[in-house]
Amino acid sequence: MTMPGSALSAPASPLLDPGLLAAAPTGLAELGRLVHEIARECADGLRGRGGPLPALSPEDLTGLVDAQFPDGVVPRNGAGTGAVLALARACAQTTVDLADPRAAAHLQPPSLAVAAAADVLAGIFNASVDTWDSGPYAVEIERRLVKGICGLAGYGPESGGVLTSGGSASNLQALLVARDAAAAKLRDVRSGGLAGFGQEPLVFCSELAHFSVARACAVLGLGEDAVRTVPVDGRHRMRPEALDAMLRRVDPDTQLPVAVVATAGTTDYGSVDPLPEVAAVAREHGVRLHVDAAYGCGALFSDRLRPLLDGIGEADTITLDLHKTAWQPAAASVLLARDAADFAPTTGLRVAYLNPDDDGEAGYDGLLGLSLQTTRRADALKVAATFLALGTDGIGAMLDACHDLARHAERAIAAHPRLALTAGVTLSTVVFRYVAGDPSASDHVNGELRRRLLRAGAALVGRTDAPGDDGRPAVHLKLTLLNPQTRTTDVDGLLDAVVRAGRAVEEGSAA
Amino acid sequence: MTMPGSALSAPASPLLDPGLLAAAPTGLAELGRLVHEIARECADGLRGRGGPLPALSPEDLTGLVDAQFPDGVVPRNGAGTGAVLALARACAQTTVDLADPRAAAHLQPPSLAVAAAADVLAGIFNASVDTWDSGPYAVEIERRLVKGICGLAGYGPESGGVLTSGGSASNLQALLVARDAAAAKLRDVRSGGLAGFGQEPLVFCSELAHFSVARACAVLGLGEDAVRTVPVDGRHRMRPEALDAMLRRVDPDTQLPVAVVATAGTTDYGSVDPLPEVAAVAREHGVRLHVDAAYGCGALFSDRLRPLLDGIGEADTITLDLHKTAWQPAAASVLLARDAADFAPTTGLRVAYLNPDDDGEAGYDGLLGLSLQTTRRADALKVAATFLALGTDGIGAMLDACHDLARHAERAIAAHPRLALTAGVTLSTVVFRYVAGDPSASDHVNGELRRRLLRAGAALVGRTDAPGDDGRPAVHLKLTLLNPQTRTTDVDGLLDAVVRAGRAVEEGSAA
Repeated sequence: MTMPGSALSAPASPLLDPGLLAAAPTGLAELGRLVHEIARECADGLRGRGGPLPALSPEDLTGLVDAQFPDGVVPRNGAGTGAVLALARACAQTTVDLADPRAAAHLQPPSLAVAAAADVLAGIFNASVDTWDSGPYAVEIERRLVKGICGLAGYGPESGGVLTSGGSASNLQALLVARDAAAAKLRDVRSGGLAGFGQEPLVFCSELAHFSVARACAVLGLGEDAVRTVPVDGRHRMRPEALDAMLRRVDPDTQLPVAVVATAGTTDYGSVDPLPEVAAVAREHGVRLHVDAAYGCGALFSDRLRPLLDGIGEADTITLDLHKTAWQPAAASVLLARDAADFAPTTGLRVAYLNPDDDGEAGYDGLLGLSLQTTRRADALKVAATFLALGTDGIGAMLDACHDLARHAERAIAAHPRLALTAGVTLSTVVFRYVAGDPSASDHVNGELRRRLLRAGAALVGRTDAPGDDGRPAVHLKLTLLNPQTRTTDVDGLLDAVVRAGRAVEEGSAA
Repeated sequence: MTMPGSALSAPASPLLDPGLLAAAPTGLAELGRLVHEIARECADGLRGRGGPLPALSPEDLTGLVDAQFPDGVVPRNGAGTGAVLALARACAQTTVDLADPRAAAHLQPPSLAVAAAADVLAGIFNASVDTWDSGPYAVEIERRLVKGICGLAGYGPESGGVLTSGGSASNLQALLVARDAAAAKLRDVRSGGLAGFGQEPLVFCSELAHFSVARACAVLGLGEDAVRTVPVDGRHRMRPEALDAMLRRVDPDTQLPVAVVATAGTTDYGSVDPLPEVAAVAREHGVRLHVDAAYGCGALFSDRLRPLLDGIGEADTITLDLHKTAWQPAAASVLLARDAADFAPTTGLRVAYLNPDDDGEAGYDGLLGLSLQTTRRADALKVAATFLALGTDGIGAMLDACHDLARHAERAIAAHPRLALTAGVTLSTVVFRYVAGDPSASDHVNGELRRRLLRAGAALVGRTDAPGDDGRPAVHLKLTLLNPQTRTTDVDGLLDAVVRAGRAVEEGSAA
């Protein structure tokens, strides 16, 4: 237990006039001071901790925050910036500390200091990239950022793209583009809707594709039943010949293939579908290919891992989450299109108050026509700052380091008598199980040992369902290694903690 | 022309190891230092400016940024944090300076220093509110923030809500909820899609509703043709009796009303539809009511303006953009539902790797089930910090100040022989025209005078289409006053600049 006492502590005295505007000269000076103070409170708040999470149950935390804010967080009267510093300290005391090497659960990296610092530019100026005159420099930077990433993906000069609020939003927009392209063969779905769609829409993805694909189908009115899951091979990759067979069975009189979605970096395994083969099948059947590289995109920056993405340039659209394997604070997702004109039917839009034709002709154009958002934060600034500071080589080296750590974990798990390796490493994840003495208790023991580590704040490992010994879904554990500062001894310690917690659960001892 | 020389200037020396993680002790210290340096570069960059925009054409700016980054912004080799400071300085030199009182175009406020500073917490810890163990404190804060705003809106204990990436996203999700609620009467649209929807879906909103309503209909597969625009009265507010008549004409055998969307703060006029009357009509016809209060939500915090929102608690869902009238940096949109259970059919979701049932039963639940996003930034932290520092009274006073400025502008325009007032003030906008000597040249003169001010960097006013003398759409100008530090003499100066630019266009002099 590392929480200081029973309450979230309150620090320091107010610093600034809380009504100052960030971009005013006085506001900028005070913002610099306040961030400095916030960083100090964060350091103080983290200092007393013993692990990546506070040693608190959810109920405990709720009680502490209730005590911190007895009148809620939307009071009538303000308390000045002292309240902000108290919030910062409490956040540091009770957040998940992704910089702790024992945090290895989600595709949520510790952010780079340079990115978090540069992100303040978005907040200070509040530029919006929808129109030129709401953020001209940010518009220019986003255009160059997208162009640079298009080049890395192997896209040509007709390509384009846009930043979105996350991988789910990127996948949604990609499938929207695909839906409207497919439906254009039939009728004008944009104006008339899907009510008369007639044919049954189909979206093909592997059984390990992210759930946002099915959810996007539901949002877009295609229905989750539109999803056809293609089997995977022993390395958790879509089987192209199975995809081919499924596409051959499509009845063109009653069914309409909307898209094939390949995954470059599955959430659980990091496995990458065989892109050249999948692309060839999609092309042969005349179906659009979207590649969800939300996780795998980091391989674009690594000489060692780049071959995993061979063929990605054949995709019609690509999702890349730079808030995963480029160590950005969220959100920093990018949706690329091999042909930027693909965006026009779905998001191309002229609005009298934002981008009228005559302004566009005079060069005053923003990025409204590429996005489903209107006001849109200048997320490109932090990303560009990061690449300018570290280069793609710097980011690639971070992914290589995580890949090395995952390989180490893979070997350690395989060698450990109480751990069973489920899947080896492609990017930076390892799936495994604690081997329960009573195999029928495996689900309970694995689920409970993870919560036991959570409650103690000692370690944060991931979990998921994977086929168990009988082929049915069973609770598995997962390490997602995204902290390049982690050492191999840290990984060893994390695995030891898992085994100790598993034993404790089996022995029925109190948490 | 206020740009220093012909190039974007490069400052200072590198500060930090660009690979530091933000939440590590060394990272926190260096982040504090780097933000301080960034703020200084911003102040330096702003100092030489003579107006809210750089005195640059779009082509000029493109050329400057090309010169700044001859190798693009995604280089193979990093240049350290010096590059970040250069980016910051160039951004300050060429961004739109919303703190300049002559920036009065968009619903894009100058952000509060306290909000921009507190936002660094989201970047440092990179918490994600989708699951408890990816950001427990942020989850607690978002819950309290939503609860507090629900209370201000008059919602009861069953209410709930979620932060989204913007007003367009909030409106999209509100209409998704409405679509699936309406379709549930017919069949399970979530799984089966809209292909067999059968009936023609209808969404009713005023002709001044935001374009995101029609776009959401297109995205959701309802089609833009689903939108039925209800006429407005002389004060730009939906006519409830017209809505009632339109709903009476619905053919229940072939048509399905999905939602009524009322606007509380139209983009152009700030006008607020008569919420109690619209709610009564919607209720009588059994149709869901969504209120788009993206702009008008600020009135919740103002004793003076709160009566505009009377009746808002009768809405089924409400969009509130705190990145508009709560002076937050984007994004800080909130979607509220009077009954939180409404979210369940559309976004309620359990995923083995994120929120399995047994974790949920143990209290380890995040906000995944409320959102269309998966990874989601802890935007609630900056918002809560702002309310804690200023209180709702502090924010309300800012809106009151902007309302006063708009009233002043309204009077000044009405009194000016070369300006014609189109619409008076409800919140903080004024729509007007420069009176061209040749009325047939009015569109050209008004459009061009605005660009002339843009090119000179001297002032940033908004524009939109509104009915002209002949009732057809004509180019109008708009002041959106969201800077509470602006003085009435600044407003007078802005209107003088408009008139001078109009005369110059008419006289055909060079920009």
